[in-house]
Amino acid sequence: MSLLVVGSVAFDSVKTPFGVAEDVLGGSATYFSTAASYFTDVKLVAVVGDDFPEKHVSFLKSRKVDVEGLQRTAGKTFRWKGEYGYDLNEAKTLETHLNVFEGFKPEVPESYKKPDVLFLANIDPVLQREVLHQVERPKLVACDTMNFWIGGKRAELVRTLAEVDILLINEGEARELAGEPNLVKAAKAIQGMGPSTLVIKRGEYGALLFGTDYVFSAPAYPLESVFDPTGAGDSFAGGFVGYLDNMHNFDEKSLKQAIIFGSVMASFNVEDFSLNRMKSLDYKEIESRYREFRKLTLFDDIA
Amino acid sequence: MSLLVVGSVAFDSVKTPFGVAEDVLGGSATYFSTAASYFTDVKLVAVVGDDFPEKHVSFLKSRKVDVEGLQRTAGKTFRWKGEYGYDLNEAKTLETHLNVFEGFKPEVPESYKKPDVLFLANIDPVLQREVLHQVERPKLVACDTMNFWIGGKRAELVRTLAEVDILLINEGEARELAGEPNLVKAAKAIQGMGPSTLVIKRGEYGALLFGTDYVFSAPAYPLESVFDPTGAGDSFAGGFVGYLDNMHNFDEKSLKQAIIFGSVMASFNVEDFSLNRMKSLDYKEIESRYREFRKLTLFDDIA
Repeated sequence: MSLLVVGSVAFDSVKTPFGVAEDVLGGSATYFSTAASYFTDVKLVAVVGDDFPEKHVSFLKSRKVDVEGLQRTAGKTFRWKGEYGYDLNEAKTLETHLNVFEGFKPEVPESYKKPDVLFLANIDPVLQREVLHQVERPKLVACDTMNFWIGGKRAELVRTLAEVDILLINEGEARELAGEPNLVKAAKAIQGMGPSTLVIKRGEYGALLFGTDYVFSAPAYPLESVFDPTGAGDSFAGGFVGYLDNMHNFDEKSLKQAIIFGSVMASFNVEDFSLNRMKSLDYKEIESRYREFRKLTLFDDIA
Repeated sequence: MSLLVVGSVAFDSVKTPFGVAEDVLGGSATYFSTAASYFTDVKLVAVVGDDFPEKHVSFLKSRKVDVEGLQRTAGKTFRWKGEYGYDLNEAKTLETHLNVFEGFKPEVPESYKKPDVLFLANIDPVLQREVLHQVERPKLVACDTMNFWIGGKRAELVRTLAEVDILLINEGEARELAGEPNLVKAAKAIQGMGPSTLVIKRGEYGALLFGTDYVFSAPAYPLESVFDPTGAGDSFAGGFVGYLDNMHNFDEKSLKQAIIFGSVMASFNVEDFSLNRMKSLDYKEIESRYREFRKLTLFDDIA
């Protein structure tokens, strides 16, 4: 199987109640690729500036991420600066410098043009569609988005959603996109826009999966120390989509398991700054935490 | 088995985005008893004024709730007025008139003095202890509390907690009680105060059960129409404690199942104002929703 992702590669500066990290590796495509790399081979389309150090590229290569689609442009790499309070659910953005990302024209290399699965990370919905139209229609197209596009480029986002199979979206953003406070009704409304499957991310409360005729609820892993939530959503998406690509099966059973693998990857990612925890992971730890999720949620039927 | 509850019986006036209910039957002990009555026989200790209509007493009797311990005092019944916005998670209290509840001295009738299980609903921790000390030590003592007592009568609450087996508490209140933002750490701190088992209620996000050496996560049922959240926590407690009393077994397996029955009762309760939905329930519906919770959370192990 083959998985293609387009998104951002960035430098993040993050402050949480537990510490500070300056100019560390970040970006939606970075977190996604790294998490997905534990399940399948990933091809990356993104842009960095001439300040992007080779060691980060080497790291991605060490995770067997194909970086042929990683453009290098004169200028600086995308930079984000944010802060979290004790309520780690929401980041306060202090600075955003798009830099080379501002003029990003995604170009899908020839060797990438027949992906089985495509993940459109959280970027301009116009760019998401441009990537989608540069490849043969994949068997599965999943995408992420955020309030910035829901508010600012709604019509374009709706056009993108019409071509997408799975949307991953935050709870508040799902309500905003649907204009509906009830989450079940909001999910139905969004499914009506195109994606037959919807994953609603709820931070420390886990995730809901809305399928064609079922709902599935996954908890978050109750962690004693959450260090830095940056990239949790993208790591979640990486585990989720990576597992699906590996299974080559998108049925109800696989989607539910994939949600748990997504939750597993997110739970590891928040245990340290940047991609530090994911860098030191091995697959046995992932399996072991998957089984912890089983224990966390299993209860007996009634007689 | 026998289950004793002490708490409030009240008239509620509630406004939600979906309607208004004036002077309807409410109160923690009322919701609790009604929910628990689907699982076991309940004995009620509470106080009402001389304005309390016989029809409400008849209703409780029809649910086989023993009302020998329901005191009638000259004066008005406890009244609460509240409002919910589209975020149905938190009520805005508009008015609280304690009325006869202000001078409430719980008196446990002789026929109530050997309960197997005791539930101390959300009242003054001093009164909770007075009830506990009027009965033979039950096999299981569970209690509820709220920010009002955590802030205002902390020392008394801590004394009560030292004598309790299970505490049910809201998420924010657990953090406040423990003085700790991380929920896992907060749970450990509270378990150190006495209750070996802790149930953290998270509204539309479900509940967490912290046992002696395990954690269990239960989702809330994704409802398309939540009408009125009043009494959800007490209905939850009623299903949870009522099931445990019925099982006469407080092991890990039963506690997990009990959490689901609690969630089932809460999910029904919010579908209508006051106790209207619980009034029309039958046990088959409860079992059927229990199985819906299984479908909602079950996923396959990895090979």
